[in-house]
Amino acid sequence: MDIKTAKETLLKMQDKASAYEHALGLLSFDGQTTAPSKTASNRAHAIEILSEEIYKLTTGEETVQVIEFLNEHREELSENELRMVDILRKSLKYMQSIPMEEYLAYERLTVEAGEAWREAKANNDFNHFAPFLEKIYETVKKFAAYVSPEMDPYDFWLNEFEEGLTQEFCEEFFGQVKSRIVPLVKSVTEKKQVDDSCLKGTFDEIKQEKFARYLMDVIGLDPEHVGLATTEHPFTTSLGSHLDERITTHYYPENVSYSMYSVVHEGGHALYDTGSDDSLAYSVLDGGVSMSIHESQSRFYENIIGRSKPFIELIFPKMKEIFPEELKDVTADEIYKAVNKVEPSFIRTEADEVTYSLHVLVRYELEKKLFRNEIEVRDLPEEWRKLYKEYLGVDVPDDTRGVLQDVHWSDGLIGYFPSYAIGSAYGAQFLKKMKEDIDVDACVAKGDFALINKWNREHIWKYGSSKTPKEILNIALGGEPFSLDYYVEYLQKKIESVYE
Amino acid sequence: MDIKTAKETLLKMQDKASAYEHALGLLSFDGQTTAPSKTASNRAHAIEILSEEIYKLTTGEETVQVIEFLNEHREELSENELRMVDILRKSLKYMQSIPMEEYLAYERLTVEAGEAWREAKANNDFNHFAPFLEKIYETVKKFAAYVSPEMDPYDFWLNEFEEGLTQEFCEEFFGQVKSRIVPLVKSVTEKKQVDDSCLKGTFDEIKQEKFARYLMDVIGLDPEHVGLATTEHPFTTSLGSHLDERITTHYYPENVSYSMYSVVHEGGHALYDTGSDDSLAYSVLDGGVSMSIHESQSRFYENIIGRSKPFIELIFPKMKEIFPEELKDVTADEIYKAVNKVEPSFIRTEADEVTYSLHVLVRYELEKKLFRNEIEVRDLPEEWRKLYKEYLGVDVPDDTRGVLQDVHWSDGLIGYFPSYAIGSAYGAQFLKKMKEDIDVDACVAKGDFALINKWNREHIWKYGSSKTPKEILNIALGGEPFSLDYYVEYLQKKIESVYE
Repeated sequence: MDIKTAKETLLKMQDKASAYEHALGLLSFDGQTTAPSKTASNRAHAIEILSEEIYKLTTGEETVQVIEFLNEHREELSENELRMVDILRKSLKYMQSIPMEEYLAYERLTVEAGEAWREAKANNDFNHFAPFLEKIYETVKKFAAYVSPEMDPYDFWLNEFEEGLTQEFCEEFFGQVKSRIVPLVKSVTEKKQVDDSCLKGTFDEIKQEKFARYLMDVIGLDPEHVGLATTEHPFTTSLGSHLDERITTHYYPENVSYSMYSVVHEGGHALYDTGSDDSLAYSVLDGGVSMSIHESQSRFYENIIGRSKPFIELIFPKMKEIFPEELKDVTADEIYKAVNKVEPSFIRTEADEVTYSLHVLVRYELEKKLFRNEIEVRDLPEEWRKLYKEYLGVDVPDDTRGVLQDVHWSDGLIGYFPSYAIGSAYGAQFLKKMKEDIDVDACVAKGDFALINKWNREHIWKYGSSKTPKEILNIALGGEPFSLDYYVEYLQKKIESVYE
Repeated sequence: MDIKTAKETLLKMQDKASAYEHALGLLSFDGQTTAPSKTASNRAHAIEILSEEIYKLTTGEETVQVIEFLNEHREELSENELRMVDILRKSLKYMQSIPMEEYLAYERLTVEAGEAWREAKANNDFNHFAPFLEKIYETVKKFAAYVSPEMDPYDFWLNEFEEGLTQEFCEEFFGQVKSRIVPLVKSVTEKKQVDDSCLKGTFDEIKQEKFARYLMDVIGLDPEHVGLATTEHPFTTSLGSHLDERITTHYYPENVSYSMYSVVHEGGHALYDTGSDDSLAYSVLDGGVSMSIHESQSRFYENIIGRSKPFIELIFPKMKEIFPEELKDVTADEIYKAVNKVEPSFIRTEADEVTYSLHVLVRYELEKKLFRNEIEVRDLPEEWRKLYKEYLGVDVPDDTRGVLQDVHWSDGLIGYFPSYAIGSAYGAQFLKKMKEDIDVDACVAKGDFALINKWNREHIWKYGSSKTPKEILNIALGGEPFSLDYYVEYLQKKIESVYE
């Protein structure tokens, strides 16, 4: 094998894999958007076959040889080529270390666990789900030992979902979240509560869609490359490459803010993905690099921009135009306060900006304790209640609105939650850096997102996955170390402006 | 190779191919329905790669060997297995007989010809398209000679698109169309014309969609397996198997009947496809067998059922409910006459039931003359005008509304048109046979489509492609020979009832 051929083969393999990913992504998207209701097993037929093909392609002998060959000639590779090899070696190592039989058994387990979780949630019956979650914990610990026996298993999984993330970082991060944001939330609950009834009412879905498309336009999404659809739960997906991006939302007629902020949140993900340099398309370097950087962008647009006063003032005339009757006597200031209402609650996905990271804190602490064998799966409901009471001051009424609320654990996503909170904190420090270069508030007030998006593109988006999350953080922060100060300060100011 | 392994390999190959077809079908469907506007080249990237994979799969050495092996052991194959082998051998023979270079050059030619056709149509400039069409004719003649040198080239292409179709049959068929339907059309033009203004107005698209879904329900489409979407031109497509079917329509606010009959027409295609026996899924025997049988079903539901008096009376209350203002003073009888208005026109796709086959007749005669070198491509506009004047009595005003109106020829679909007309005629004879078993009018009047659909399922649908079109015709007609009498008689009666 010569180096030139090996490089070409590597690119060709990724090129081909992206076509399969395109098809698989579209099959899933179709299933969640327009497919008739009883076509899932027909779709599963295609998904299974195409997944097997992509598995053979990416772990086949030729691919393994090429990757190993290139890894032995690192000095002859460009930076991007090195990064490709590292990303591909990481997933190869995972696939090669786990006995195929155990891997498939785990795939089946998570399917069954998902079913059990749905039933358990519907019936407020944690015991029905517990045996599955126990097996999942057993398996993820075993898999971590197979792949990286030298690593602490929780560190292994944190790093699987967020390259470079460690318990050491999480301990420091969530320690500060606990010591600084818990008191912040307590301070709000002592104040006169904000009235958010202006967001409630009856908001026609067609008008909401019009509003959604307006918001996409405002934040600078390119309608020629980014589509909008409706699904049960909002999400963002790239099809084939960053050149075809889809975001979804859900319209609740009784609540105008749900879709509004879903669109701006998913819009942030889509801006990040579509901002990849075009040269990265059809390779593993295309699209956002990690959960935390992704959330730093989605939550930046949703919260830092989308819940700011200038943004509300910017979009207010259009809101009134689309919903003249529904928002008849409402002022921009009332909307600003309503969308920033801070209220400890049970459900993470409905949490406000200030309490959000406490929901994640609870999950982090429980995962950690389970990995350290300080608690067992059967203790989770009780521990969950205790922590929600302690951090959020609420009495969780049942497990459906408690430990059973999220799908993640049933799907084997253990070690996945922390990045949700970390990304939010990154965003606040990005804002501070951005403000050194441009007048963010003035741009938002004018509806001029070109400069804001350009800053993000130059500092974050264009790299796609060609840098590690840490490298991107370093670029965006200009070498400054990450600090929670900016996030806490940002939240403090927000609270002050809303709760005078 | 043993016979058992060979059979399994054959099934597995088709199973896999259907997954690729599913993905390719969905990519195309997505492109025409929900994809953002500038994502075509991103989609083409995936399509190209997956098409290459399916090509390798279906023409690869292993597949060829298995098919040839099974063909040498025909006595050991079931009826369905024999049919699979025959279908696969036919397409293999095609692919193997044409030099790859010429095949690819032709693919490129049709892409360029499509572009040229669009421009030519937009600018009423046939000369811009003519050189491409000349090359297309040259190539299809050459390809016919490569694959089946013993066959007349036009017969070859008729048989490619409609297994078993010959010029001999077409000569007889279109000879009768000319001698019997041309006078029928002339007889109408002498009568007092019907007023169809009740179908024109402003019909809200959301109401039209509601109406469309009602119509799908009426004719018995299963909403759990058949979806509805909107596209520029209506079509029907199966995704992966007959278990996931999509039909599309287009809503013109100014004309309620366009989408109405698009939905019933595409609904007929979908009923046929989804009626395949479930055991045929993921094989080449799944779904409708040919264009003419397909059109016999789509036009059966659209015209024979959908434009019948009992059908209009059945749906009339719902129409009034959905469009109370728009159809305020309109009666069912007025709608019945309006949807059955006979009027010679320029455009095939907008033609009424009676004139429709004359549009196809023109195309058949021109294709035949080109194959026989009786005319040349450059003569087409003139010949087109002459035939439209002769058969339809209209003066074609320009080539845009004349020879350039259809996309088919630019796409290399030569020999494709005849089955459009043949299918319509089949439908009339199916009706006559169906009436021997059930009271069709009474079923329609009651909105009870179960018996009608059961008859079609038992006689036509369930076979999918496991029988040849001729065999299916034979089953459905209970051995009776095909005759145009039933169609002509049907059209005569229709005219009498509309034009008293």
